[in-house]
Amino acid sequence: MALISPSRRLRRTPFSEGVEAAGVKAYTVYNHMLLPTVFRSMQEDYRHLKEAVQVWDVACERQVELRGPDASRLMQLLTPRDLRSMLPGQCYYVPIVDETGGMLNDPVAVKLAEDRWWISIADSDLLYWVKGLAYGYRLDVLVDEPDVSPLAVQGPKSDDLMAAVFGDTVRDIRFFRYKVLDFQGRDLVVARSGYSKQGGFEIYVEGSDIGMPLWHALMEAGRSLDVHAGCPNGIERVEGGLLSYGNDMTDDNTPHECGLGKFCNTQTAIGCIGRDALLRVAVEGPVKQIRPIAMGGDPLPGGCDRFWPIRAGDKIVGRVSSAAWSPDFDTNVAIGMIRMTHWDPGTEVTVEAPDGTRPATVKDNFWI
Amino acid sequence: MALISPSRRLRRTPFSEGVEAAGVKAYTVYNHMLLPTVFRSMQEDYRHLKEAVQVWDVACERQVELRGPDASRLMQLLTPRDLRSMLPGQCYYVPIVDETGGMLNDPVAVKLAEDRWWISIADSDLLYWVKGLAYGYRLDVLVDEPDVSPLAVQGPKSDDLMAAVFGDTVRDIRFFRYKVLDFQGRDLVVARSGYSKQGGFEIYVEGSDIGMPLWHALMEAGRSLDVHAGCPNGIERVEGGLLSYGNDMTDDNTPHECGLGKFCNTQTAIGCIGRDALLRVAVEGPVKQIRPIAMGGDPLPGGCDRFWPIRAGDKIVGRVSSAAWSPDFDTNVAIGMIRMTHWDPGTEVTVEAPDGTRPATVKDNFWI
Repeated sequence: MALISPSRRLRRTPFSEGVEAAGVKAYTVYNHMLLPTVFRSMQEDYRHLKEAVQVWDVACERQVELRGPDASRLMQLLTPRDLRSMLPGQCYYVPIVDETGGMLNDPVAVKLAEDRWWISIADSDLLYWVKGLAYGYRLDVLVDEPDVSPLAVQGPKSDDLMAAVFGDTVRDIRFFRYKVLDFQGRDLVVARSGYSKQGGFEIYVEGSDIGMPLWHALMEAGRSLDVHAGCPNGIERVEGGLLSYGNDMTDDNTPHECGLGKFCNTQTAIGCIGRDALLRVAVEGPVKQIRPIAMGGDPLPGGCDRFWPIRAGDKIVGRVSSAAWSPDFDTNVAIGMIRMTHWDPGTEVTVEAPDGTRPATVKDNFWI
Repeated sequence: MALISPSRRLRRTPFSEGVEAAGVKAYTVYNHMLLPTVFRSMQEDYRHLKEAVQVWDVACERQVELRGPDASRLMQLLTPRDLRSMLPGQCYYVPIVDETGGMLNDPVAVKLAEDRWWISIADSDLLYWVKGLAYGYRLDVLVDEPDVSPLAVQGPKSDDLMAAVFGDTVRDIRFFRYKVLDFQGRDLVVARSGYSKQGGFEIYVEGSDIGMPLWHALMEAGRSLDVHAGCPNGIERVEGGLLSYGNDMTDDNTPHECGLGKFCNTQTAIGCIGRDALLRVAVEGPVKQIRPIAMGGDPLPGGCDRFWPIRAGDKIVGRVSSAAWSPDFDTNVAIGMIRMTHWDPGTEVTVEAPDGTRPATVKDNFWI
């Protein structure tokens, strides 16, 4: 691996001080911000995430805030998911599509009030798309990036850690719901959500100044729980089939190709910009789709830094976009997009990894 | 420095193979793509850039292409620079502003024809802003990211190297003009431009497949010229006052604050979205502005990874956003934004660098 050159453009976060003190070894860049990727080692971080509890600096999940009379109208313009029955207190995973149905981001929408939303974004400047539309449509809405930096608490002991800091009320928060809870006199949105399958919370830290106080409070309260600084784990997220925008999907893909058809209410999401384009694909289905792929051969030495072609004989039928060796499932786990001719579970294919061709099998479900 | 974790999301370029073979040591991420930052060392790369010629993988300068009857109208919507007299064959540096006059990018616009433009972007997803506006305004224009990856040739021997590959006609290309030249049967836009003050060209490589053939041709032809793989240099660009979007300016800043008022024709750029907001600042001037700052003390060990406050007594009067030790000018060179009360050349201030407070002086001009 090469080094990463520091610069102001790769923004630090309100938690960077804590991340550095915890001995971060590697980063990626996400929304022009540093996102840790390794603390002890990918494997140690993985094991610990599944057994204890970690605090993650995911400040790079920047927020796009919509405020004003047209906020809900604008929100529905962005996504084919029908938002009419969504209430304040809820979070929805919302594919965002352009007029061709191509995905521009796959964020979580947080409804704060009828006229106020946060969109907790994946890695693209969704702010620019939303601002462009709001201006072009002359909507009565303010759109900006507020000083809100999510901090995630993930792992099986998350409830215990969070209860120690925020009180037992956190235990009652349902999946993809949030409560507004007090920390040192500040109201923070605390949601049961996060980018792992191990359970946990995301705290929307409003105000950079309380970033490190909250970090320290969690670390202090979690000593007996073996709390450690962590980050989204490249093994665990592939096992769990958690997609990554920019890795597993781009604006070339429809939500249906990404297996996100269940979040598209193309019949009823009136106003959505991509609705017309998605009506046909919703009926006929996509011709290629994301699938879990089990890859044979030796444990992969690293991840997937480019598309690896999937072949059936001499025909290319898809590509792998994320992959890792899974200690728990004793196989190489991968996320691929594959043509319908070869996407049935059990289909045998080959994957052209950089270190050679590997046998692979299309699976019916992800591992977790 | 920490490591950078590879992933598909940090896109490789058509030249990555050449960059790796040349022994790249560090990267930054720019427009979701890998941008090399160091080959031999920052100082060696700097010396070589000023004396010989380098080939730079700047594929991360992605293009936003506008095609169609409304392309020119859309282009003028984006920028306060008056584009009416611009002809095909020309490149313009164009600040891009939102409706508040805040800068969203500072790209180079390449006019290919009346109805076809490329915008060669700095580090933000300008594509999303342009697509959002085009859709909101219902313009008759196609907006997308084509398979075009710039390769720069920079340094005093650039003309000789380029002439060896493209013929002597390159010597006649004027600054910020381009010619369409043949390479292996393909027409490529070749402009006299680039992100250094050492002279040179940017080749808009259309079609990833000819990326490495062109890389090899330049390396082959440049042997006697001591050609080497290089990259934008963190010392040379600060000496030359070449601003960096995301480092030295963000959407909080107007072009005037960045010293880019000369590129704003607010009286005549009819249609520009930010024109109303900029009319007042164009008349009254900004209250803070980019300035060259000479910093005392020992040679800086590294660059600037966050804003360093500029103080006058106990008052904060600005911030440094880029800085480096300059061997040629025997001082620490920096780019800062400073309030009008303290921006006069010769003003003595202090800068709070991470390793302590340093004396500093506001300069009248950059070093090159």
